[in-house]
Amino acid sequence: MATTAREGRRGGGAARREARTAPQRRWLPVLERRIPVYEVLDAERLELIHRASLDILEEVGIEFRDDEAARMWRDAGAEVDHYRVRIPGELLMSLVARTPSRFVVHARNPERSTEIGGNKVAFAPTYGSPFVYDFNNERRYGTLADLHQFHQLACLAPAMHNTGAVVCEPVDVAIPKRHLHITYSAIKHSDKPFMGPVTAPERAADAVEMARLVFGGAFVEANTVMISLVNCNSPLVWDETMLGALKVYARANQSVIVSPFVLAGANTPASAMGAVAQLNAEALAGIAFAQLCRPGAPMIYGHFLAAVSMKSGAPMAGTPELAFMNCAIGQLARKYRLPLRSSGMLCGAKTVDAQAAYESVQTMWPVFLAGANYVMHAAGWMEAGLAASFAKFVLDAEQIEMFYKFGQGPQFDDLDEALAAVREIGPGGHYLGTEHTQSHFQSAFFMPELADNNSFEQWQLDGARDATARALETARRMLDTYEAPPLDPAIDEALLAFIREREAVLPDKME
Amino acid sequence: MATTAREGRRGGGAARREARTAPQRRWLPVLERRIPVYEVLDAERLELIHRASLDILEEVGIEFRDDEAARMWRDAGAEVDHYRVRIPGELLMSLVARTPSRFVVHARNPERSTEIGGNKVAFAPTYGSPFVYDFNNERRYGTLADLHQFHQLACLAPAMHNTGAVVCEPVDVAIPKRHLHITYSAIKHSDKPFMGPVTAPERAADAVEMARLVFGGAFVEANTVMISLVNCNSPLVWDETMLGALKVYARANQSVIVSPFVLAGANTPASAMGAVAQLNAEALAGIAFAQLCRPGAPMIYGHFLAAVSMKSGAPMAGTPELAFMNCAIGQLARKYRLPLRSSGMLCGAKTVDAQAAYESVQTMWPVFLAGANYVMHAAGWMEAGLAASFAKFVLDAEQIEMFYKFGQGPQFDDLDEALAAVREIGPGGHYLGTEHTQSHFQSAFFMPELADNNSFEQWQLDGARDATARALETARRMLDTYEAPPLDPAIDEALLAFIREREAVLPDKME
Repeated sequence: MATTAREGRRGGGAARREARTAPQRRWLPVLERRIPVYEVLDAERLELIHRASLDILEEVGIEFRDDEAARMWRDAGAEVDHYRVRIPGELLMSLVARTPSRFVVHARNPERSTEIGGNKVAFAPTYGSPFVYDFNNERRYGTLADLHQFHQLACLAPAMHNTGAVVCEPVDVAIPKRHLHITYSAIKHSDKPFMGPVTAPERAADAVEMARLVFGGAFVEANTVMISLVNCNSPLVWDETMLGALKVYARANQSVIVSPFVLAGANTPASAMGAVAQLNAEALAGIAFAQLCRPGAPMIYGHFLAAVSMKSGAPMAGTPELAFMNCAIGQLARKYRLPLRSSGMLCGAKTVDAQAAYESVQTMWPVFLAGANYVMHAAGWMEAGLAASFAKFVLDAEQIEMFYKFGQGPQFDDLDEALAAVREIGPGGHYLGTEHTQSHFQSAFFMPELADNNSFEQWQLDGARDATARALETARRMLDTYEAPPLDPAIDEALLAFIREREAVLPDKME
Repeated sequence: MATTAREGRRGGGAARREARTAPQRRWLPVLERRIPVYEVLDAERLELIHRASLDILEEVGIEFRDDEAARMWRDAGAEVDHYRVRIPGELLMSLVARTPSRFVVHARNPERSTEIGGNKVAFAPTYGSPFVYDFNNERRYGTLADLHQFHQLACLAPAMHNTGAVVCEPVDVAIPKRHLHITYSAIKHSDKPFMGPVTAPERAADAVEMARLVFGGAFVEANTVMISLVNCNSPLVWDETMLGALKVYARANQSVIVSPFVLAGANTPASAMGAVAQLNAEALAGIAFAQLCRPGAPMIYGHFLAAVSMKSGAPMAGTPELAFMNCAIGQLARKYRLPLRSSGMLCGAKTVDAQAAYESVQTMWPVFLAGANYVMHAAGWMEAGLAASFAKFVLDAEQIEMFYKFGQGPQFDDLDEALAAVREIGPGGHYLGTEHTQSHFQSAFFMPELADNNSFEQWQLDGARDATARALETARRMLDTYEAPPLDPAIDEALLAFIREREAVLPDKME
């Protein structure tokens, strides 16, 4: 049996040897937020929404379309009618309270382990796109080769704290086998924590097994090493597939983001705060259920939010009601002391243009200020999630670095020296040559690399390239210099052997 | 003599007649912000910066490079050495305290009058660009025809509360005469408040005279009808030109934005909070001086902020330190009970691409949350202000409408009905056909017109146009349907006669 990355490392020497040979990469550990959260609800209105969610679960109920889940709810004391579960508020809240407020997701490289919850903020790439905008900025179906490159970029991006999973769908791999290659790619191409598949319980089990090969079975039993995402079929339905994956992960002590998938106005009422009341009920019910699977299972209060255009039915990102909803959900998650997942750089654009950027940053600000702890879709998201873009990945990743710096709070330790410089320079002078400026210019102001702030003339001389063209060049250069983080060859071989073994029994087509 | 718009209106009939014949335009009155401000400084740090600013003015001093100004300061009790003025903290604060916390800027159409200060937020277009990106999206020098069109767009944009002034420089008009045509264009093409010239005291006086022709002399003496912008030559210099304009406006009871022009790291220390301490000193000194000109003069605490790339010297927008600085300045302005001006949709991009939008929204969020009362450069700004873009004007204006809606706070009066809809629909249903959705879909979710959220296929069928191309079409359509707001022909003739009279004595070239 291979010495696993984590258990081997306990012994000592191997980890140190790996660290010495690992390529130097810029790395911003999980952000410790030192700025205030932004709240739009007063205590009374927060309570109003909380109560409304409890009323929904008590009186309307929610469907758990899974025989075992329905049984578990009945045994726990809920009122169960076939799949419809009506959950008394007290039962609900006592289960929710079992969820840890913060926990660590371990990475195969311990330096990349990520605390989730509290005032920590972790960022993760986009997820689930069938299409990519490739290095020619052309749109086509995603492939496994694309996915490898996205995982490599996630490894390289300093403020990405998770490699993700299915950044794009590798449509060149048979669906029943796809999860194996997605999970392997995330493990192989990056040493950050990763996400697991949820498309079937057996696939979730395969991913847990692969994690055991990497970290060792005992380590995985005692620690969280992956985060997976299950969506609620809003309104008020948890389906069998999602519950199947959730049960596997929760019972294996692995983290799950319990996410109502909200298209506000279509699968919620046409009311921002009404939609929040509904999705809060859905999230709490899912989290409570996870605690029935394994008390103390590390669950994350999740949600995906889009508003639906009442004209065309299209999902929209970055609109003001979504901002309120994010802020309100942040307040609810804090009330329940639950780690919170939200979604960052969302847009509906079909090209990496001004719309793509407007919508992405309009989404990210309230998400960040709302206190989200795990920000999915923080890089690369296009077209309401239908496509992942290499250009947008690196552009977004730089914006995220700026949010990261903002989250660290304003610097004050340089103030006295700065005031001394004001005295030294006086009226009408300039600061560029001063000692204070020389010694602080590296750290005082963030300098984005992808923004072109040169003169128009210089920009023309440089080829008059827009942000997308510059970003594609940067992405290419990053991949050219990419070096895979070291992975014990025995672990690698064990993973590949496992994939071969599973592929031998899995069909090539969906049944 | 012409019956002026305002004094004529006092009588009654004329205003009503005008209102009946005025074209219907969408209009969002000055925003009454109902969301909390966002603060990054605790009380102690706020005091620290305040004290540092007072120390700068007491100990280092600030230059007022104008003989009369220096005399006025000496008479007021400051320590004056040639132009260097050292202002005791008590004197400074007692002068600053004379500034009204809120005041109304009257428009020639009373419905467009704008309160400045308190929890009100007004948005104004970009200002001062020599270049334009025209309707072919080509960059060239601005003309008077361009300026007319920008003023028309400012008139049409629902959330623009001011027509601005020199949105672009009309370089086809001789410099000594330019201010007359800029001011006339702003008055003629829009019925919103406008901004005045500051390039020479006589030009400011001309603008005040034109305002008297529009509103009547007595009305202008008793009321504020224009906002003008004077910049401090940071560090710590108020020059003769700016002071000349400031004196004219302050003595005429007209509002001035007293704005340190900060290129942080170049004309301030390389420290975000050190830069704030310096610019706060500059702004307070300018505002205090205005109160020596006329106690109670309606001054606005202003600033322009860019960070300087320590690599290239280029100004940068939308970076995290600028966000902190905006938040901190908001806290200072509230401490002094002063109306606050900031700058919204800034960028350094040379094309309306993702960079342009990222930087603009990254700038606007902290500005908005900081509690700015008057947001300049809220539409059209490109290239660090060197160019104004028609495409970006309408794109930005729509983003501003979203900030406007966000500023109104979350809606709660629809919550009960929304919860009734949840009960009605229950698990697994959908809301699109419900009565609640039908009756709320207009108001529940903001629907941006310039964002394309259709499918990729539909977007291709529609011509695969990016946001810039769509925006240019929208801008063209807006101008095609533009109808000038009614202006009493006698006033119009009086303005034109004044311009003829002044042009007869003004040179064609700068001396």
